[in-house]
Amino acid sequence: MNEVRVRTREGEYPVLVGVGVLADLPRLLAEHAPARRYAFISDDNVAALHGHPLMEGARDAGLDASLFTFPAGEASKTRTSWSILTDELLEAGFGRDSCVVAVGGGVTTDLAGFVAATFLRGVPVVQVPTSYLAMIDASVGGKAGVDVPAGKNLVGAFHAPRLVVADPDVVRTLPRQERAQGLVEAFKHGAILDAAYFGRLHDGLGALLAADPHGAEDAVLRSVEIKAEVVSEDEREGGYRQVLNFGHTLGHALEAASEYRLGHGSAVALGMVLEAEVGERLGVTEGGTRARLAGSLSGLVDLGPVPLDPETTLHYLRADKKARAGRPRVVLLRTLGEVDPGSGWSHGVDEALLAEVLREGMHRGVRAGAVEA
Amino acid sequence: MNEVRVRTREGEYPVLVGVGVLADLPRLLAEHAPARRYAFISDDNVAALHGHPLMEGARDAGLDASLFTFPAGEASKTRTSWSILTDELLEAGFGRDSCVVAVGGGVTTDLAGFVAATFLRGVPVVQVPTSYLAMIDASVGGKAGVDVPAGKNLVGAFHAPRLVVADPDVVRTLPRQERAQGLVEAFKHGAILDAAYFGRLHDGLGALLAADPHGAEDAVLRSVEIKAEVVSEDEREGGYRQVLNFGHTLGHALEAASEYRLGHGSAVALGMVLEAEVGERLGVTEGGTRARLAGSLSGLVDLGPVPLDPETTLHYLRADKKARAGRPRVVLLRTLGEVDPGSGWSHGVDEALLAEVLREGMHRGVRAGAVEA
Repeated sequence: MNEVRVRTREGEYPVLVGVGVLADLPRLLAEHAPARRYAFISDDNVAALHGHPLMEGARDAGLDASLFTFPAGEASKTRTSWSILTDELLEAGFGRDSCVVAVGGGVTTDLAGFVAATFLRGVPVVQVPTSYLAMIDASVGGKAGVDVPAGKNLVGAFHAPRLVVADPDVVRTLPRQERAQGLVEAFKHGAILDAAYFGRLHDGLGALLAADPHGAEDAVLRSVEIKAEVVSEDEREGGYRQVLNFGHTLGHALEAASEYRLGHGSAVALGMVLEAEVGERLGVTEGGTRARLAGSLSGLVDLGPVPLDPETTLHYLRADKKARAGRPRVVLLRTLGEVDPGSGWSHGVDEALLAEVLREGMHRGVRAGAVEA
Repeated sequence: MNEVRVRTREGEYPVLVGVGVLADLPRLLAEHAPARRYAFISDDNVAALHGHPLMEGARDAGLDASLFTFPAGEASKTRTSWSILTDELLEAGFGRDSCVVAVGGGVTTDLAGFVAATFLRGVPVVQVPTSYLAMIDASVGGKAGVDVPAGKNLVGAFHAPRLVVADPDVVRTLPRQERAQGLVEAFKHGAILDAAYFGRLHDGLGALLAADPHGAEDAVLRSVEIKAEVVSEDEREGGYRQVLNFGHTLGHALEAASEYRLGHGSAVALGMVLEAEVGERLGVTEGGTRARLAGSLSGLVDLGPVPLDPETTLHYLRADKKARAGRPRVVLLRTLGEVDPGSGWSHGVDEALLAEVLREGMHRGVRAGAVEA
């Protein structure tokens, strides 16, 4: 078992990564998050696979544990689900001496994290991510929240977990396509901070997609280390944490334009390639970076023409910009494995250039060579 | 103008107290909470009296300010109002570089504080309390939240304000009865930590109820000093902050049993006298304390027989207990102006004794001499 520590302004918390570590969950809960009662929260798919067995295991070990579920899917990441779960916990008599245990993917870690952040003004949460995306991204860093009609993740809180337990073995239970979506964020970690890791992911992609436990453990561990390093430096996204947004300025706009039918991984993969193109045109990003990104990411998701309206995508890009004032801000690589510092780790980029790159890329696709074709 | 500083784990914030200080609000906002845009939030009563004029004043001073309102009353302190206000801010394009300015009583400071705590995962809030209760209690200490069907303030967050601006002159705009309700918490501050202050409040009660600015400033300032001292010591209610709950274990049960028709001040006043009775019977509280409390508080609120069902009140007392495990916990005075440390600044008290004191007190009333009558 490997331990990575994340620093926050309220102290440190450990992220434990290891194949089989979940067998130890009851002991880990008692040690890191002692509580009178534990409220496990899972969506109804993950409940059957992991939530219920883990809750039963906690009971067998003598802990007072209950399971609360909600319908699977991003459509559940709302204030309504948050209200219902909160009321269920209150109805069941959970008090301040309780701990929430989130078992699931990114929707669950965000939603259950927000329940914990606001329940009786805040109770501890332990994150048990069960998807690649949640293990390497959503469960580390303390972001919690829900979607609202105006957009995703616009309501929430920073609520550092007491403990994160990531067992790469559980990715076996994910559909292959969901593994691929989640691994995009791992490639992003390599692209911004560790070219050698990017190379290992590229070389081992077949094993990773097949959920080989050793490959999965290496990927989860290195990604957690990178994310922990970044959020320990800048918990609240004032500066350095921006680097994690590589691929996300254009990725978010594409996601929104698709009404979230485009997977987060697919959108971010497209976003990374397009933002590398922007960086190359501006002379900030080393030539060939876009092609290397496209070459690797095409093994994960479809980088062909994007059947969405570019003008709608630009509308969402502008909406994002409006909320932040000034030109859209984009994280640009200097080269693979290194972010250009810009100002505050991002660059203000003219909307005209972004529009041009977006229109061309969406029309032709962004597979290696596609833009040149 | 007087300045009291409150320490939190995220730094310090000032509470400014002074007759007429609100004339300086635009400058104070720019200095203590610089932001691109300011979202003033008031209920629709206070909006006309203070929210709108203050927002206009900020605009005249060159700040980008808007006003958002909600229907006056505790019934608005819900997740629904929070959702509506949040969506209105998003719709109006407010981003992370915004600041919420809460102008109003306790409902507003709690509700707007929760909007700020969760808007885009948290934006700064400035509290401008306009009632005694909000000035001396709700606006200081960083508690934010809403009521839910299971009870009051069960969902929320700790979100320290950047600044609190308390102008005692505005209590002139309150109905006399609301002044009386709010002043109960001032007497509580005296009862737990400062007997001399309790005496000054008792002697100056006529002027306070008549909203004499000098008396109001003394009361607000000393209460803010006491509350600041306590919450700086223990921001999250782990221990010493408990002392502020004197009168509140039984007070909350009475409030709930009345379905919140009993004012918070009335309920806490009854709670303080009843809890002093409990303390005297247990030999913890000096004899005569109950009578002194009753003598002073009867100048503020009705301490006569309480036309509620004692069994319903006991039900709410037990519900509170269930959520915390073990016997109900009550803050007991040693003498007027001093809390008995007990264990963790409160005492576990047998439910039978609480039930007896509650039944007798509710039946006969708790005016000085009433229990003996």
